[in-house]
Amino acid sequence: MLRIGFLTSGGDCQALNAAMRGVVKVIQNNCKEPYELYGFEDGYKGLIYSKFRMLTGSDFSGILTRGGTILGTSRVPFKTIDQPDENGLNKVEAMKQNYYKLQLNCLVMLGGNGSTKTANRLSEEGLNVITLPKTIDNDLWGTDMTFGFQSAVDIATTAIDQIHTTASSHGRVFIVEIMGHKVGWLPLNAGMASGADIILLPEIPYDIDKVIDAIEDRDKRGSRFTIIVVAEGAISKEDAKLSKKEYAKKLAASKHPSVSYELADLITKKTGREVRVTVPGHVQRGGAPCPYDRVFASRLGAEAGKLILKGEFGYMVGYRNREMVKVPLKEVAGKLKTVDPKADIIKEAKLLGIKFGD
Amino acid sequence: MLRIGFLTSGGDCQALNAAMRGVVKVIQNNCKEPYELYGFEDGYKGLIYSKFRMLTGSDFSGILTRGGTILGTSRVPFKTIDQPDENGLNKVEAMKQNYYKLQLNCLVMLGGNGSTKTANRLSEEGLNVITLPKTIDNDLWGTDMTFGFQSAVDIATTAIDQIHTTASSHGRVFIVEIMGHKVGWLPLNAGMASGADIILLPEIPYDIDKVIDAIEDRDKRGSRFTIIVVAEGAISKEDAKLSKKEYAKKLAASKHPSVSYELADLITKKTGREVRVTVPGHVQRGGAPCPYDRVFASRLGAEAGKLILKGEFGYMVGYRNREMVKVPLKEVAGKLKTVDPKADIIKEAKLLGIKFGD
Amino acid sequence: MLRIGFLTSGGDCQALNAAMRGVVKVIQNNCKEPYELYGFEDGYKGLIYSKFRMLTGSDFSGILTRGGTILGTSRVPFKTIDQPDENGLNKVEAMKQNYYKLQLNCLVMLGGNGSTKTANRLSEEGLNVITLPKTIDNDLWGTDMTFGFQSAVDIATTAIDQIHTTASSHGRVFIVEIMGHKVGWLPLNAGMASGADIILLPEIPYDIDKVIDAIEDRDKRGSRFTIIVVAEGAISKEDAKLSKKEYAKKLAASKHPSVSYELADLITKKTGREVRVTVPGHVQRGGAPCPYDRVFASRLGAEAGKLILKGEFGYMVGYRNREMVKVPLKEVAGKLKTVDPKADIIKEAKLLGIKFGD
Amino acid sequence: MLRIGFLTSGGDCQALNAAMRGVVKVIQNNCKEPYELYGFEDGYKGLIYSKFRMLTGSDFSGILTRGGTILGTSRVPFKTIDQPDENGLNKVEAMKQNYYKLQLNCLVMLGGNGSTKTANRLSEEGLNVITLPKTIDNDLWGTDMTFGFQSAVDIATTAIDQIHTTASSHGRVFIVEIMGHKVGWLPLNAGMASGADIILLPEIPYDIDKVIDAIEDRDKRGSRFTIIVVAEGAISKEDAKLSKKEYAKKLAASKHPSVSYELADLITKKTGREVRVTVPGHVQRGGAPCPYDRVFASRLGAEAGKLILKGEFGYMVGYRNREMVKVPLKEVAGKLKTVDPKADIIKEAKLLGIKFGD
Repeated sequence: MLRIGFLTSGGDCQALNAAMRGVVKVIQNNCKEPYELYGFEDGYKGLIYSKFRMLTGSDFSGILTRGGTILGTSRVPFKTIDQPDENGLNKVEAMKQNYYKLQLNCLVMLGGNGSTKTANRLSEEGLNVITLPKTIDNDLWGTDMTFGFQSAVDIATTAIDQIHTTASSHGRVFIVEIMGHKVGWLPLNAGMASGADIILLPEIPYDIDKVIDAIEDRDKRGSRFTIIVVAEGAISKEDAKLSKKEYAKKLAASKHPSVSYELADLITKKTGREVRVTVPGHVQRGGAPCPYDRVFASRLGAEAGKLILKGEFGYMVGYRNREMVKVPLKEVAGKLKTVDPKADIIKEAKLLGIKFGD
Repeated sequence: MLRIGFLTSGGDCQALNAAMRGVVKVIQNNCKEPYELYGFEDGYKGLIYSKFRMLTGSDFSGILTRGGTILGTSRVPFKTIDQPDENGLNKVEAMKQNYYKLQLNCLVMLGGNGSTKTANRLSEEGLNVITLPKTIDNDLWGTDMTFGFQSAVDIATTAIDQIHTTASSHGRVFIVEIMGHKVGWLPLNAGMASGADIILLPEIPYDIDKVIDAIEDRDKRGSRFTIIVVAEGAISKEDAKLSKKEYAKKLAASKHPSVSYELADLITKKTGREVRVTVPGHVQRGGAPCPYDRVFASRLGAEAGKLILKGEFGYMVGYRNREMVKVPLKEVAGKLKTVDPKADIIKEAKLLGIKFGD
Repeated sequence: MLRIGFLTSGGDCQALNAAMRGVVKVIQNNCKEPYELYGFEDGYKGLIYSKFRMLTGSDFSGILTRGGTILGTSRVPFKTIDQPDENGLNKVEAMKQNYYKLQLNCLVMLGGNGSTKTANRLSEEGLNVITLPKTIDNDLWGTDMTFGFQSAVDIATTAIDQIHTTASSHGRVFIVEIMGHKVGWLPLNAGMASGADIILLPEIPYDIDKVIDAIEDRDKRGSRFTIIVVAEGAISKEDAKLSKKEYAKKLAASKHPSVSYELADLITKKTGREVRVTVPGHVQRGGAPCPYDRVFASRLGAEAGKLILKGEFGYMVGYRNREMVKVPLKEVAGKLKTVDPKADIIKEAKLLGIKFGD
Repeated sequence: MLRIGFLTSGGDCQALNAAMRGVVKVIQNNCKEPYELYGFEDGYKGLIYSKFRMLTGSDFSGILTRGGTILGTSRVPFKTIDQPDENGLNKVEAMKQNYYKLQLNCLVMLGGNGSTKTANRLSEEGLNVITLPKTIDNDLWGTDMTFGFQSAVDIATTAIDQIHTTASSHGRVFIVEIMGHKVGWLPLNAGMASGADIILLPEIPYDIDKVIDAIEDRDKRGSRFTIIVVAEGAISKEDAKLSKKEYAKKLAASKHPSVSYELADLITKKTGREVRVTVPGHVQRGGAPCPYDRVFASRLGAEAGKLILKGEFGYMVGYRNREMVKVPLKEVAGKLKTVDPKADIIKEAKLLGIKFGD
């Protein structure tokens, strides 16, 4: 009897269901022994507090195209897993016990950076763990691509396209704030896809004067409007010099709900121009996965299923140099994949005339 | 020689270009005398300051599906048109002079409420004016429908759909703030289309306790999440008792960027629940018009073209009880079409279980 | 105890699930007595052969946006219902018996023309029946609009838009064949929405020479390409003179899979031009309903629910002059709502320069 | 003075304009000498017959998202370029003469397999040529990806999704014929993205009995329907044994417009089942490019611009192992990149339960 537990952890994104369906299809079609599938509810919480349900084929029917996660999800920060909960429960021990109580052969965890650290910890504790790289941020180390990313690029690009018609009709400076957590993959790609004029990324701290120069330069060349794509983690050159603590303090003290409003204010102060801010927000993580993500997540799921059937554990399934690979969890955990300011794509964007404020 | 001036006024929206193309196609295909088309730039500003360009067939090629307005637009509030500009210019006189200087036979104005008041004023001053009902708010009196509305419903619905998957995956209360200015057509339709649980409209002031009851009632019935669609003009029962001035003052003093954040705060305070707010904002007005709007705007344009050929002026072209109609501008100007809280659609929504906080 | 049976009949379309959900939501939220919901499988077949399942709340969760029908559907032509089946079963009697055996209070039937005739028959036989107007063709008499129609317009328009870029790049004559059965609502609206040059409808038999004139006229004016939208039921002036039988015979004898290929051949023969044909086909009926249809189907469902609670039967719920109405089934059955060649929309389309081949 | 000629050749596809815009943006922003841009009309025809126009910045404004090609395109088969035209013109010589007459520094050609062979020939004749890999088929040798491909996957997937709801509602076998010329990349990816049950590719000749087994196996497991994605170049095991000539003859003699209808007939004959065929056709090549293609085409264009500025010619710009590369034209010309039946993605698809008829 093969017993597999599933959980989805952290912020939800597109193609979580597609990836789980992939694993399950492989088991259904190829497993020669009987098997049972367990779904833990709301991420690691379900594993900690033994909230789960048995899953059958019908749970996975029609979910290839469905957004969100049929299991529910939640955030249990890695740094809290060694702290007892409010009732004194040792969370790591609880997860281990529930794993053994259900006689699981392995746990399939779909999550991002923090969640993978916890998965690695469970692997080190002796559990059989396989993870799949879930995040719209595409910031997971060890894989060239994560599922959710391309779907989010599609949504963010559509939003900027829509702002484009209004910006050009009204002749305005428009800021669109795009997700991506502390890395710039999503705003970079959505910005390039939508013909943004300026893109501000966490990895390339911006000089406000260069941003203003770029706006005024467009003016001089007769452009009626400027579209600035601002990563939610964008940072100015001055702020980049602050310690993490100081910067967090500064952010918390701001009267603005996000960095984009701060920047809009500054541009207005320095140039007298009206600047509009749009923050598409959570829509970027929702809705049906795009075809790219459906294929990609299915493939990742298939490879995870293969590893389970072979009994190989302790890996994240990733994609590197056009090959599906298994990456040891300890190599992945705690590392971030950021945009290299010297990467080809940045050089190309600059050749195309896109300004990064550096 | 027939000389027609065009201008688009107020916030841009989808199908402005489609509507103009409609007028022009009728002229091109049916006008027996020579004609000239003039496009005033950036709305009434172009007419006031004589900024215009001659338009030819190629200007209208391929614009049926293009968002925004090829003429540019701006807001010139009705209440300011009788105030001299910073150089002492009389705006109304300037518009009349430019109209006569170009020997125009008529002016086609595409705009919403305020812009139509100005158009009516120009009509009263003796100019030949025809207007087309442009607004995503669908709040123009005298027509059952305005172009831009259905496109905005599509975009707003997609946004709420996308929030839906995240809300259900995380088990959260989510507020999505939908445009519509001071009326509820857009949030009502987008909310019904996306299966929202609670919809708060300007026309139905809400009781915060009823909103919270509705959330808790869903909880009791086992729902993990609640989606609240909040009109940008939504107002609480208490605030509805304030005078316009007092309410404006209260809004201005708020630390929140919009009513949705205020409401989210209140729900959190009263229930301890985490509430997320998403404000899709300007994206609702941008991008390509939906097929419905393309047909509708083309038909409005065609009827406007017909009126021009017949020499009938002083009308807004509208749609009433499934018929294209010409509505005298003086009947339209200054009136608002709001959602009747006793309308069938509201009764149906209530039967379906949607709560309005009343 | 209230017992309601549901069935969906004929070709599937968008918003069938949304409409059923509407009825059920009203019952769930407003019915004061206990109730049971029965879903007959695959249309009238399920009622004839007693194939059904009990439906619960979870069957209707999340289906507002789901295409197709959760009950399955099939075609049981009206003219066959009085013929015994292959085992000698009297179909009408079987439906009555199964209705009474389950002690149903009413039957909710979602279907188009033929299906509504059968519903009317059952109503005449004494069953309590309510129907909802389902069809992408919008050809049901007694209602200005049917659900599925606007979703199909959206899909058909997108298809023609996509052909547009290729037609203009290659400078070709392109025919796109659009559904709509024997009426022209769908090709007319999709054609106008996508800027088609020529639209051939069943209601306006075309003269091939006028079609060719229109193509050549575009050539002379410098257009590189021509887009012809052909209704699947389009017919030439000569063929329109044939009896139904003769025409059916002629169609059956054709070597072409549809009228569009026939037309393409003819144009090529007469002009030497290369003509490409695209037949989007069944995609027009599939996928998620558009926001318009979701609201509209929900409203229809709500009104049906209201009628059930009031105990009023024998009606189709429709929409006329912007009001929800109940239309006696006997008034609806057997009548078709066609495009009037003298309707305003046709006149407007002609003013816009669109040719209909007449 | 730098003089650059542009032409787009072969079937149009998405992102042709985006790619040209990329080249031009690089020149505009980085070229230190004066430059002139020439656009040849309708592909190689424009170069042969000296049909061109000067291009300015405004030609490239707003075309990032526009489908088709602003230059027009046509097919001039490689094997015909050495045959004189109907007036005895030597085409290769004519192209060379026009190139020299305009004093071009280089020719940028956007095209697929055949067009690249012609480009290579011109390069061998001494012209400076750079090509960009255009095709929805993704069959160009020397690059992992071509622009147009992902946009076509998106459209094809949507079509199959739409068929899915109808297939499941009616319980039918549905065939959807997907483009891709003689290779299977597009049907493979669209099929996996849409959860197709059976995918028939040119690279994996199918055994009709295995296809029927797969349909019947689904039946036995309780599935109401089967979706078969058939590549336009799909071929049976028997037909794969024929010589190219024999097979072409057989195809020409068929009464069916395409392989899918042939297959449908065969399935119906062997199983008695009703099978529906949908052929989305040219829509797969049309409409706006998806965000992935916009970024990718812009990057390819940027690299081409870089090569032009450096004076490096005789290359196709490609993408290999996540790096932009220049590939000598002579290495590319005449080679095809097909789906390897033993590739990981095929193995994964099989693990997921997808049948290929082998």
